[in-house]
Amino acid sequence: MAQRHLDPTGPRPGTAAPLADPRPGTVATGPTGDVLAGYLRAQATEFLRALRLHRETGAGANGSEGSAEAARALRRSARRISASLHTFQPLLDADWCEAMRPELAWVSGTLAMEHACTARLERLLAALHRLSGSSAFPAQPAGATGPPPGGRAPGAAPAPAGAAPRGATTAPERGNLTVGAAKAGALLDRQLTLARTRAHSTALQALGSSRFHAVADKVAVLASEVPLTGPAATTDLRPLAVAAEDRLTDAVTALPLVTAGSPYNAAALVHGLSPDTVAHPQDAPWHQVRLLLRLHRYAREAVSGPRGNAVVDLRLLAAGQALNLHRDASEAAAAAAQAARTPRIAPATAYALGVLHADQRHEVEAARFAFQQAWQKETVGAS
Amino acid sequence: MAQRHLDPTGPRPGTAAPLADPRPGTVATGPTGDVLAGYLRAQATEFLRALRLHRETGAGANGSEGSAEAARALRRSARRISASLHTFQPLLDADWCEAMRPELAWVSGTLAMEHACTARLERLLAALHRLSGSSAFPAQPAGATGPPPGGRAPGAAPAPAGAAPRGATTAPERGNLTVGAAKAGALLDRQLTLARTRAHSTALQALGSSRFHAVADKVAVLASEVPLTGPAATTDLRPLAVAAEDRLTDAVTALPLVTAGSPYNAAALVHGLSPDTVAHPQDAPWHQVRLLLRLHRYAREAVSGPRGNAVVDLRLLAAGQALNLHRDASEAAAAAAQAARTPRIAPATAYALGVLHADQRHEVEAARFAFQQAWQKETVGAS
Repeated sequence: MAQRHLDPTGPRPGTAAPLADPRPGTVATGPTGDVLAGYLRAQATEFLRALRLHRETGAGANGSEGSAEAARALRRSARRISASLHTFQPLLDADWCEAMRPELAWVSGTLAMEHACTARLERLLAALHRLSGSSAFPAQPAGATGPPPGGRAPGAAPAPAGAAPRGATTAPERGNLTVGAAKAGALLDRQLTLARTRAHSTALQALGSSRFHAVADKVAVLASEVPLTGPAATTDLRPLAVAAEDRLTDAVTALPLVTAGSPYNAAALVHGLSPDTVAHPQDAPWHQVRLLLRLHRYAREAVSGPRGNAVVDLRLLAAGQALNLHRDASEAAAAAAQAARTPRIAPATAYALGVLHADQRHEVEAARFAFQQAWQKETVGAS
Repeated sequence: MAQRHLDPTGPRPGTAAPLADPRPGTVATGPTGDVLAGYLRAQATEFLRALRLHRETGAGANGSEGSAEAARALRRSARRISASLHTFQPLLDADWCEAMRPELAWVSGTLAMEHACTARLERLLAALHRLSGSSAFPAQPAGATGPPPGGRAPGAAPAPAGAAPRGATTAPERGNLTVGAAKAGALLDRQLTLARTRAHSTALQALGSSRFHAVADKVAVLASEVPLTGPAATTDLRPLAVAAEDRLTDAVTALPLVTAGSPYNAAALVHGLSPDTVAHPQDAPWHQVRLLLRLHRYAREAVSGPRGNAVVDLRLLAAGQALNLHRDASEAAAAAAQAARTPRIAPATAYALGVLHADQRHEVEAARFAFQQAWQKETVGAS
């Protein structure tokens, strides 16, 4: 979880300020603070729209599909506002920025938890399904560890209980590991469903809190009035956007890209059985690049609008998707390792969780490879 | 184990016979039966030399290094004689070939077991070492599960017993998996050392048996007198060698090379938790290609001598090494899965074996990728 809250380090916004220093006599030829203000107003409006939608769609025990969509839209705009405050801070009221950013991070972080638990469970159960090659358990999370009490699932054909996992085999010891996969799936389902339920309650509490109402009030003000500094209206945004890109480029340069670009380098599973399995410090620089890439992408959005340069955008999107996969697989691998620490589990369950952990660590390695491939693509346009 | 004794299928030697049909009036322009006879005599001589060396170096409890080297040389020549009997059978006395081949396969198969157990244990302990990132256990097999009774290993510095595995961690639950890796290593060491000891005894018994003496006698005759058919002296060897190459090419064409050439295809671990984990039927075509590639390589040797074409040989060697790795990783993965079925193991041990199994299955996938890369290389020469 801590990795979701990493604060992008590298040069602080202040160090980039001289690039955008609005010296008297300097005539800005590109987008200025007005463009930034327009972008922030649009994102604030989107935030308020999503918030209204979230309240209208209600918040059932596990959230409706509409409220999940609304929460995604809330996070989406909160991230963009927060990123703009970071990248273009010299153009904005400093105290306001300093007060606003952690609150926006709290909103998007809190709302992200429930979705993350759902996605992680889906990923792990799909992987177990793929690895097990049997129909011992569903590929999609059922939201429960067994059939509903007092009856079978709606529409299910009658079948002898417990027949499926052993259907394909006769010798009991051969079926053992498949049973292990089913048990591992049930354990993960139990643990991650519990975590999701908790995350849902936390998000509901957060949305009803006075802290959130204060954030919403500030965003409502932002939708009409952006606290630009005096010279912001004539300050070119681009040097600040370039500084964000430079921070990304520097961080990418520090990644082990030569290794990542060599298939089957087996780097992601190194130390897979070390005491630090759950933390996996080797993932941190990649998580960091993921955040910096997002900052860069949002800065481009603010400067040039979402249709700035379709070709480069595709490259950035591909690189970003690889890093999202990297994060998801890293956290799924950690969840499998964590589940294996549950006391009194059967050896077959632990074995399946070990296979699952390694499988997800290889997805981590595959995501690094995909990032390297996307990143090295030329930025020149395709037809 | 069964996979080591796969009989190369594909067209039987008989179906290739017409290509080499020694019709009256056909003048052979390439290497003929005489060249084959020379090759077989040389290999038979090598077999006898290795056998003499093996007897001289003795056979201690675990075999000396010299006797291991001698056993390797014995297998090496037995494989080449057997392969030549297969590929060039139409040029040789049919009854003699039919009687000789299974006996040579028995010799090389029996002698291979001990080495295979040693190599498998080394591979698995090295992988555990890499995955564990701790010095909880040695990377090289110690040949025993602990210090020798009544004393520490020669030259070892005094150290508190059992201190190493937990040295790097303070919280017991964090150290759990590292202890799991150490226990998994000890379990594999125990099981594979036992298997190696049994294989050693079996090999010793085999070498002392009347069955083996009969084979050695036949090889001794072969060293001076090769049972060629009447027309063999004027029959071109090359069409039979081409037929062996065609059988290889056909089998390679049937492999899923497009998948194998796409990094991180995750194909090797599909069904990694299915009841058929140990068998892994998807590996069989690759094992088959490994045998056919060896037959092709030995056929080239027989026809053109070991220095035939260095460039193509390098390509074949690289492809063959990838397939050897494929076989080794496949069998190591199976051994890890098998060890996980040991009754009453701790969950942490089972977890470590699961990670290890998946790791080796990814080595399988990596070996397929390496084969695809080697195979697609042009056969045109380098400088």
